[in-house]
Amino acid sequence: MIIDCAVYQDGRRLDLKPSATEARRVSEERSDSFAWVGLYEPKEEEFEDVRQAFGLHELAVEDAIKAQQRPKLEVYGDSLFIVLKPTLYVTAEHDVQVGEILLFVGRKFIVSVRHGDVGELIGVRKTIESRPDLLKHGPSAVVYAILDNVVDGYRKVVNDLEDQIQEEIEAEVLLPNGRAGPEEIYTMKREVLEFHSACAPLVEPVERLARMRVGFVDETISAYMNDVQDHLLKVVSDVHRFREILSNAMELHLSSTSARLNQTLSQLTIIASLFLPLTFLSGFFGMNFGWLVDHIGSFWTFAAAVAAMAVTVLIQLVIFRRRGLLG
Amino acid sequence: MIIDCAVYQDGRRLDLKPSATEARRVSEERSDSFAWVGLYEPKEEEFEDVRQAFGLHELAVEDAIKAQQRPKLEVYGDSLFIVLKPTLYVTAEHDVQVGEILLFVGRKFIVSVRHGDVGELIGVRKTIESRPDLLKHGPSAVVYAILDNVVDGYRKVVNDLEDQIQEEIEAEVLLPNGRAGPEEIYTMKREVLEFHSACAPLVEPVERLARMRVGFVDETISAYMNDVQDHLLKVVSDVHRFREILSNAMELHLSSTSARLNQTLSQLTIIASLFLPLTFLSGFFGMNFGWLVDHIGSFWTFAAAVAAMAVTVLIQLVIFRRRGLLG
Amino acid sequence: MIIDCAVYQDGRRLDLKPSATEARRVSEERSDSFAWVGLYEPKEEEFEDVRQAFGLHELAVEDAIKAQQRPKLEVYGDSLFIVLKPTLYVTAEHDVQVGEILLFVGRKFIVSVRHGDVGELIGVRKTIESRPDLLKHGPSAVVYAILDNVVDGYRKVVNDLEDQIQEEIEAEVLLPNGRAGPEEIYTMKREVLEFHSACAPLVEPVERLARMRVGFVDETISAYMNDVQDHLLKVVSDVHRFREILSNAMELHLSSTSARLNQTLSQLTIIASLFLPLTFLSGFFGMNFGWLVDHIGSFWTFAAAVAAMAVTVLIQLVIFRRRGLLG
Amino acid sequence: MIIDCAVYQDGRRLDLKPSATEARRVSEERSDSFAWVGLYEPKEEEFEDVRQAFGLHELAVEDAIKAQQRPKLEVYGDSLFIVLKPTLYVTAEHDVQVGEILLFVGRKFIVSVRHGDVGELIGVRKTIESRPDLLKHGPSAVVYAILDNVVDGYRKVVNDLEDQIQEEIEAEVLLPNGRAGPEEIYTMKREVLEFHSACAPLVEPVERLARMRVGFVDETISAYMNDVQDHLLKVVSDVHRFREILSNAMELHLSSTSARLNQTLSQLTIIASLFLPLTFLSGFFGMNFGWLVDHIGSFWTFAAAVAAMAVTVLIQLVIFRRRGLLG
Amino acid sequence: MIIDCAVYQDGRRLDLKPSATEARRVSEERSDSFAWVGLYEPKEEEFEDVRQAFGLHELAVEDAIKAQQRPKLEVYGDSLFIVLKPTLYVTAEHDVQVGEILLFVGRKFIVSVRHGDVGELIGVRKTIESRPDLLKHGPSAVVYAILDNVVDGYRKVVNDLEDQIQEEIEAEVLLPNGRAGPEEIYTMKREVLEFHSACAPLVEPVERLARMRVGFVDETISAYMNDVQDHLLKVVSDVHRFREILSNAMELHLSSTSARLNQTLSQLTIIASLFLPLTFLSGFFGMNFGWLVDHIGSFWTFAAAVAAMAVTVLIQLVIFRRRGLLG
Repeated sequence: MIIDCAVYQDGRRLDLKPSATEARRVSEERSDSFAWVGLYEPKEEEFEDVRQAFGLHELAVEDAIKAQQRPKLEVYGDSLFIVLKPTLYVTAEHDVQVGEILLFVGRKFIVSVRHGDVGELIGVRKTIESRPDLLKHGPSAVVYAILDNVVDGYRKVVNDLEDQIQEEIEAEVLLPNGRAGPEEIYTMKREVLEFHSACAPLVEPVERLARMRVGFVDETISAYMNDVQDHLLKVVSDVHRFREILSNAMELHLSSTSARLNQTLSQLTIIASLFLPLTFLSGFFGMNFGWLVDHIGSFWTFAAAVAAMAVTVLIQLVIFRRRGLLG
Repeated sequence: MIIDCAVYQDGRRLDLKPSATEARRVSEERSDSFAWVGLYEPKEEEFEDVRQAFGLHELAVEDAIKAQQRPKLEVYGDSLFIVLKPTLYVTAEHDVQVGEILLFVGRKFIVSVRHGDVGELIGVRKTIESRPDLLKHGPSAVVYAILDNVVDGYRKVVNDLEDQIQEEIEAEVLLPNGRAGPEEIYTMKREVLEFHSACAPLVEPVERLARMRVGFVDETISAYMNDVQDHLLKVVSDVHRFREILSNAMELHLSSTSARLNQTLSQLTIIASLFLPLTFLSGFFGMNFGWLVDHIGSFWTFAAAVAAMAVTVLIQLVIFRRRGLLG
Repeated sequence: MIIDCAVYQDGRRLDLKPSATEARRVSEERSDSFAWVGLYEPKEEEFEDVRQAFGLHELAVEDAIKAQQRPKLEVYGDSLFIVLKPTLYVTAEHDVQVGEILLFVGRKFIVSVRHGDVGELIGVRKTIESRPDLLKHGPSAVVYAILDNVVDGYRKVVNDLEDQIQEEIEAEVLLPNGRAGPEEIYTMKREVLEFHSACAPLVEPVERLARMRVGFVDETISAYMNDVQDHLLKVVSDVHRFREILSNAMELHLSSTSARLNQTLSQLTIIASLFLPLTFLSGFFGMNFGWLVDHIGSFWTFAAAVAAMAVTVLIQLVIFRRRGLLG
Repeated sequence: MIIDCAVYQDGRRLDLKPSATEARRVSEERSDSFAWVGLYEPKEEEFEDVRQAFGLHELAVEDAIKAQQRPKLEVYGDSLFIVLKPTLYVTAEHDVQVGEILLFVGRKFIVSVRHGDVGELIGVRKTIESRPDLLKHGPSAVVYAILDNVVDGYRKVVNDLEDQIQEEIEAEVLLPNGRAGPEEIYTMKREVLEFHSACAPLVEPVERLARMRVGFVDETISAYMNDVQDHLLKVVSDVHRFREILSNAMELHLSSTSARLNQTLSQLTIIASLFLPLTFLSGFFGMNFGWLVDHIGSFWTFAAAVAAMAVTVLIQLVIFRRRGLLG
Repeated sequence: MIIDCAVYQDGRRLDLKPSATEARRVSEERSDSFAWVGLYEPKEEEFEDVRQAFGLHELAVEDAIKAQQRPKLEVYGDSLFIVLKPTLYVTAEHDVQVGEILLFVGRKFIVSVRHGDVGELIGVRKTIESRPDLLKHGPSAVVYAILDNVVDGYRKVVNDLEDQIQEEIEAEVLLPNGRAGPEEIYTMKREVLEFHSACAPLVEPVERLARMRVGFVDETISAYMNDVQDHLLKVVSDVHRFREILSNAMELHLSSTSARLNQTLSQLTIIASLFLPLTFLSGFFGMNFGWLVDHIGSFWTFAAAVAAMAVTVLIQLVIFRRRGLLG
């Protein structure tokens, strides 16, 4: 589905509603102009017109229809093919949703194809149309605007993840009976991993754009690309930090569970050590041996037995205290 | 065993059934033509003819007969020797099966040697014969077609592994009594590791082909090779993700087993703490001391003893509740 | 808020109290002179004058007002933009506090912007004003002075962390009942991780300055920058050491908890093994079977039962001793 | 001890039994000839003649007598010094034995020095003497033959290790009561580690030889060196795989021990939960309170107590079944 | 404190006892000569003369007085500043002691400054004075001699560590009741880590010297430097091996403790499973129910009860044997 199709000259949108083919023709005729066609989940036949109008490479087109690419930048002759993975973190579901944006960039055109629910581009078009000073630098300005939007989205995800990790994992796992079990840590790790595969492979393409290694970017846009690159690097280094924090939290959980296990076992050992001997002693004097029964009739024998029990308990308490087992 | 032997001119198969030697001769005589000889597990004597026809290097031939190579690309003078490891995942047996394809590539010929059950090439020959536009670029088009087929096989394995990891490992390991024990995770890790040694070493050779560093590949085929490279990189990065997921799952299993151990032990401690003192008390009043028996005849002494037991139990229940041990 | 604004000529401060615009003008008119404007958490409107006076780049200015950057060095045309993260370790709270300093450096000016409570620059200005021999090398001398101050701050943090790790973690975790639980190790790891993200990204910018790759630094200042770089590298390698020590300490805690668990359990097993059989024996002779009661009337039956109990205990003690369970 | 000393011309051994000095002289006089002196654990004085005959460098000679080097290739002026570590795996003792071969290579000579029991060179000399086509390329052919022999030895070790890891570690560790304890895994890891330090440092020297970076190797020998390099890379990547497998096996052992611990403890908890309450109940009715004894004389009181016990057991069994504790 | 000050010409020590200033003057006047001043923990004022005599750089001098540097090589104009960390392993205390040597090297002088008890240089001076053939190559020969001495010290430490790891850690940790607890492994890891930070950063400086990248070293000395570099690389790779061995040992300890825990618990479970039911049975027949007491008077009721107990025990023993719990 074609969402929007426009031609820009000297940084300003021309008042036309061209088809893709017309947009190409107009932009070729006029100097300092370029066409921007925006599509959403195009079917093969829908995309055919656009493909022919701009002479896009067969392989890139196949990728654009199938989606499911990893972020990349490829040079086909004198045009670029860029794949981006915008993300959105749905806090309630602890879920990182990932979309896909594919860009075909030529000297005088840019075709953007979007898949999935994440990474809406209408807002981006409005934002960049309000900056004719940038837009007059050509399609690379649009690439910048889209990249900036995607990376801004990453930064929001990073902030949301940071909050959730601090509140739901770190705060809980440091409590003696916190709610964060290993399952929660695992699930969070999983989300971070998924987010990592969306944002990390983008570093190298953005660097190539920022350092003007692909020929489409002039010095002005390069400075803006550098800014995006910088934000992206911060995102990636935060993701690495999250992974380390979550690994540490998993380790901490194991260690503190193990420490608690020891406490519980110590408690059981104390109970058993105190009462098993006592139970034996009372059982001993409950035996029905005639001789025994005959010789424990007096009060003093009873008193002596009770005293023996008390002494047993006391000695054990002293031992436990010395070993630091009583708290 | 020679499976198929053909000469192609201008991207079309000539209507001949040549021997290897004839194929060589014909392809040398005609311009824009090359020979493709396909073999399956050739014996040394079978391979001798082919070797002499195309002047293959002694060492590469030895490799081709012995198989058991790792994926690689080697330059011998002005010909290439490429080793590929096609894979197939047999879901029912949780087993990654690995075959071997060896390619000898010259200016005007390609010899393909296949070992094992995986990585059938008849389909590849048909597919590429239906693309004369590619085939007219010479043997490198055949290399592309075979690489594309092998990497497509990797992508299927990745999808199967992903499904199995999600359904049989992740889903289970997050359940309190899931079926995925450490043995299952270990076995899956093992398969992923085996798959990794088949696909990962191929990255560097494909990159050399895609970047036209070995001289056989023109710009058109390079673009297609780049596409293969891209799919391969995605495969490798997915494999890394799988390894991380499985490591995390192993850790999770250990941590949650440890947490469950703590629960079971707490339960045992509660039972022992409740009943060991009671058992002692009842044993105490079961002793046969004459004095004791004489003084506990009345109902009130009995009632007092029962009350003491009840109080003991109540106090412990309160303590357990405070420590959060009763759930 | 503008903290201080001065013009330096030949390494000495001119006796002026200029506004930012005047400072720019004066420094442009005079040879061998430059302006240094110091700001603290400027608001957008406050910063506007400075921005216009020195022609700072829109993107850098945005960063300077928002703060929350990672340490970096960027080249905008013929000016530099540097971000630093000074740190302070508050021992009592086990907390690494992080500030932010942003520097705009041109041929004839330096603008320093500070955020947060850490990394005060008044002292730095005084120190560097006392070294006209350095200051006459221009703004790069001020960059050196600030970097030196920040890295000196890192070294203090490293010393504080080292003390705390040795005293509160290592010493404790090697004791049988040390106070350092996994929570303490985790919290310390967290602080070290935070400090790492402040100091480690600075290595690359400082290296670029020290190796004179950005054109502002002459050979004299380069030697001083190298000195800073050296201290920074030592800081970073110490941080890596801390991380390894803390990981080892976590592992040690787990292993020694596990060893203690084994001891406690051995103790419980000994108690149970000794008394459960005795309790059974005493219970056995406490049964009310008429035949039994009739046949255990004599002293010798009683003595035989007691002897049997004693033998049981002795045999077990011998077994335990052989297995090394009695310490 | 000098094992063998020969001069080769045009790839064929001359019919001489020269001393080292004579060998040098003969090889210098004749074109297309070189000398090969083979020594076994030479003493300093024994080696002195050889050293003077071929003008070997003091430092290399010191290394050759002391042995205990790591694999390396060094260039001294226009001669090479190569250190190799041949290995042999003694399956019965689970022991990787390591020898040492040192080669001094000049334009017209090669001196081989062997230490230890592993890496016999007589067979290598016979093999290479049967290939005059290679031998006529000079000393580098001998270097190839020795390298090929050493790397072939590595491949045998890899196969033996693989068998042993699969049969004695993997197969056992996946069984519920397998014989492979952590001690066995540790010992195997240790052997793999030792083997790794013998073979891994050789990669870089062989690469230098294969890529003709040291000037002694012509294109023909380079192809053979490449073949050795390829086998060596496979060895090293297999060693990395072994290390990962053994790490995983160690993890698996810990996890499955932990799971079994849980099972054993559950069993203990069930036993204790069933019998501790019953024991208390029976103890309760065994107390000697006069009032109690008087009121439990009838059959129905007894039947009620037995019923209470049965109900207690039944309720617990139901609870255990619900929690999945009864298997 | 100045330890020794000498001038060397053509590799031989001149018969003078010059002050630092005289040494400088003499060495400047004579060709093929250089001065070597050796200091031990100089105070600032003591060092001032030397500094002025040889024109040392302010920053390097500051480092030399403060010490506490990491190993490095720095170029100040046409002189070098080198920091070394000699080490000594005190076996009895399990302690790696670290000293510090700082070298200022110019065309015609070398100033060596030593801190701490480790790394005595008097022996080095004697050794190198006995090699005029090396000494005539100038200050770089002294640098070689000192480096060689320091690296030789590393090799001794590596040997001592290897012995101690094998005897006190590995041998013990493989025994069922070995003395090596996690604390011992931790302490050894700590020492290895400290040693690593002394020797590893030296690799890069020595490589620069060996590859003649700093201009002071001629080809002859370069060969000797290469020899030192080689020994250093072996030291560093051994240290990596130690770290891996100790990590494995820690893991092994955890795993085998866990396995032993399981054994102890199994034992406890067997004891409890055998005796808890028996105790209940004996308690049951000890109850004072009138009806019960009346009906268990005959010998056969008693025999039946004893038989029931025996059967209970037998059944359990069979079950335990089947589960492999009885060893």
